[in-house]
Amino acid sequence: MNIAILGTGGVGQAFATRLQGLGHDIMLGTREVQSTKTRLADFISKNPEVKFGTFTEAAAFGELVIHVSKGATAVEVIKSAGEKNLRGKVLIDITNPLDFSKGMPPSLIPELSNTNSLGEETQRLLPNTKVVKTLNTMWNGLMINPSLINNGDHVNYICGNDADAKNTVKKFLNELGWKNESLLDLGDITAARATEATLPIWLRVYGAKQSGAFNFKIVS
Amino acid sequence: MNIAILGTGGVGQAFATRLQGLGHDIMLGTREVQSTKTRLADFISKNPEVKFGTFTEAAAFGELVIHVSKGATAVEVIKSAGEKNLRGKVLIDITNPLDFSKGMPPSLIPELSNTNSLGEETQRLLPNTKVVKTLNTMWNGLMINPSLINNGDHVNYICGNDADAKNTVKKFLNELGWKNESLLDLGDITAARATEATLPIWLRVYGAKQSGAFNFKIVS
Repeated sequence: MNIAILGTGGVGQAFATRLQGLGHDIMLGTREVQSTKTRLADFISKNPEVKFGTFTEAAAFGELVIHVSKGATAVEVIKSAGEKNLRGKVLIDITNPLDFSKGMPPSLIPELSNTNSLGEETQRLLPNTKVVKTLNTMWNGLMINPSLINNGDHVNYICGNDADAKNTVKKFLNELGWKNESLLDLGDITAARATEATLPIWLRVYGAKQSGAFNFKIVS
Repeated sequence: MNIAILGTGGVGQAFATRLQGLGHDIMLGTREVQSTKTRLADFISKNPEVKFGTFTEAAAFGELVIHVSKGATAVEVIKSAGEKNLRGKVLIDITNPLDFSKGMPPSLIPELSNTNSLGEETQRLLPNTKVVKTLNTMWNGLMINPSLINNGDHVNYICGNDADAKNTVKKFLNELGWKNESLLDLGDITAARATEATLPIWLRVYGAKQSGAFNFKIVS
């Protein structure tokens, strides 16, 4: 399947490598292709089949689109990708509205948290796209390979307004190694408020453990 | 030990019963003693030894003080209790800044979340009191009896500025059944921002599971 990844940081690179390895055709979307290729020379030498394009080109290319850009620029990236290019498609939103302007650990961008979220903002910008929020509550190593810890037995939340799109995303998550019993459907996209709000505790636990290779498991 | 509990809702009642059962002397603090006693007639008949007093009287009575009032009135309760009555004491803060004014599930009170918290606000109001935030991330049945689920193996965060006070609270938590390996020290009181911010995900998981008898365990 043609998969577009919007964002070329560590998360985007990890997804590109993993999904290319699973046999998909990948295009990484970025603002400026040439400067990104220069920056990612090492990545490109190890992943020669991964394509590069503008956000617009990547959005047009992807049958499935994964958004992993930084929270501060996420809205701008969606606008660059173009509503028209994303119409009718499933967009997996892994962004978090982290605000690094007020010291460390980061807080959440006020207008994109509490009674709003990047998931909802994205769905509003793309009314004809099926936005599914998932995977945004953990270290990227676990997103693409959940069995790295605890036999893959830890929680990944999923939410969105379209049941069929969530089923599509669950199958995609299965491909990455997620078992259905680890996927917790929290309902519509407003639940993104809650999953994005787990970042502060994630960051504090990370600070206490000095490692990102952990996740939360719900026990009862 | 003389323990004051500020707040007479479900959480306060649960703590009073449990701590009286462990042999402590308990005073429940409330705004108006008579109306509270009328409302809690059934509780009183089952827990005749539990004392009642104003917030001020309870704060003066307690060698250890537990704050379990509603987020919207928590600051007012601390002011009523009186800085003088709490000086030099350990105050266990279990409050959460839930805002029920913007629909369900509740959001967080903007001025008491993200770059602030009820834990920090309480510590600022009580500069000579040792505020320790803990237990605020779960259903009250688990606070007082963690072994109700998963053999007690799930996380309880603890934070505060005073290391000795945190050790005192850890021993208190041990009395309630918490094992040290379940207690995760997140550092100073600013970590309350993160633990209070877990309420949105707790409420969504509660909505999905239709039961409060769950908690999060950190796996790695």
